[in-house]
Amino acid sequence: MPILIAICGGSGSGKTFLSRALSLALPQSTAILSYDNYYKDQSHLPLMQRDLLNYDDPSVLDSELFLKHLSLLRRGQAIDVPQYDFASHTRKQLTRKFEPADIILIEGIMVLQFPKDVYDFTVYVEADPDVRLSRRVKRDILERGRTVDSVINQYLTSVKPMHVRYVEPCKNKADFVFVNNESNGIDEEQMHTLLSRLSRI
Amino acid sequence: MPILIAICGGSGSGKTFLSRALSLALPQSTAILSYDNYYKDQSHLPLMQRDLLNYDDPSVLDSELFLKHLSLLRRGQAIDVPQYDFASHTRKQLTRKFEPADIILIEGIMVLQFPKDVYDFTVYVEADPDVRLSRRVKRDILERGRTVDSVINQYLTSVKPMHVRYVEPCKNKADFVFVNNESNGIDEEQMHTLLSRLSRI
Repeated sequence: MPILIAICGGSGSGKTFLSRALSLALPQSTAILSYDNYYKDQSHLPLMQRDLLNYDDPSVLDSELFLKHLSLLRRGQAIDVPQYDFASHTRKQLTRKFEPADIILIEGIMVLQFPKDVYDFTVYVEADPDVRLSRRVKRDILERGRTVDSVINQYLTSVKPMHVRYVEPCKNKADFVFVNNESNGIDEEQMHTLLSRLSRI
Repeated sequence: MPILIAICGGSGSGKTFLSRALSLALPQSTAILSYDNYYKDQSHLPLMQRDLLNYDDPSVLDSELFLKHLSLLRRGQAIDVPQYDFASHTRKQLTRKFEPADIILIEGIMVLQFPKDVYDFTVYVEADPDVRLSRRVKRDILERGRTVDSVINQYLTSVKPMHVRYVEPCKNKADFVFVNNESNGIDEEQMHTLLSRLSRI
């Protein structure tokens, strides 16, 4: 049966980066599932109202479907992962088939909102708040073409308060805290320790 | 004789903002002196080399002249404040006459590097690292026309490590810590407490 590993951490902490590094380093077959795919469909709302929702609040994610999928994966079954359209805040018609692997890495800022026994092992990726913001600014402005004002304002009014309220407290219940302030690759020592912990599951 | 109050804090903490608010709120006559005016003249170096210096390190500031000026101000004498050209990293020929006032607010990220008895009262302005970075990004990109990459890279490679090494430790020796995470004006309660402390000097 697949092993489920949660990779939690704030925006810009490097969850995807660590998940990919683990995926390459682990000897078993791996697959990465992102909780970002489970944003709720908002097509029942007028477009203007959809833009006003707080997408950093856990309630905008479809936890019910997500938990159902996790339990299917645990039993070795494939799932149909929803595909989300961030521009219109709706779920696409098509889903993506996700086949289980020996180890499934489940990443997202809210993946530790659930009881711990949902997973076999939990990791919290930690980075200083300014390091996380710097990564987010670079990504959103350089890669997504957003303006400085909109990125900073969203960060201060929504991302930061939701992080303090919902994400940061999860650090204490994680089995492993991975400190990821570096900008040049992964910290080999922590990676080594983490892999050794995972080999004992 | 003038009262000298140091206003220290990291980049983007709101030192200038607090200095101006204090200047308006204090019943005495006030004047604001910035340690930023005391960057050392680098005209002896080729321009290329000047650009490579670490301007977040205390050694690039002319502490000798600064301390001499503080002691002149303490005795009620006027000083000739150097004017710095940040583009060429040189001191301009002209200086600016600075007349003492009842209270002199002395602001800068490095003003608490000196023995505490240089001042009559010391304030450390504190803000979360991501709040400070967000203010710096907005200022440098929107007001100074710099690029996202250059602002973030300078922050991570120079501003942040120098802050951790030189600025943050000064918090412990300040007489008053002013927490300034707000984006909408000054925190009235802390301002009230600070003014009451200052009235007893």
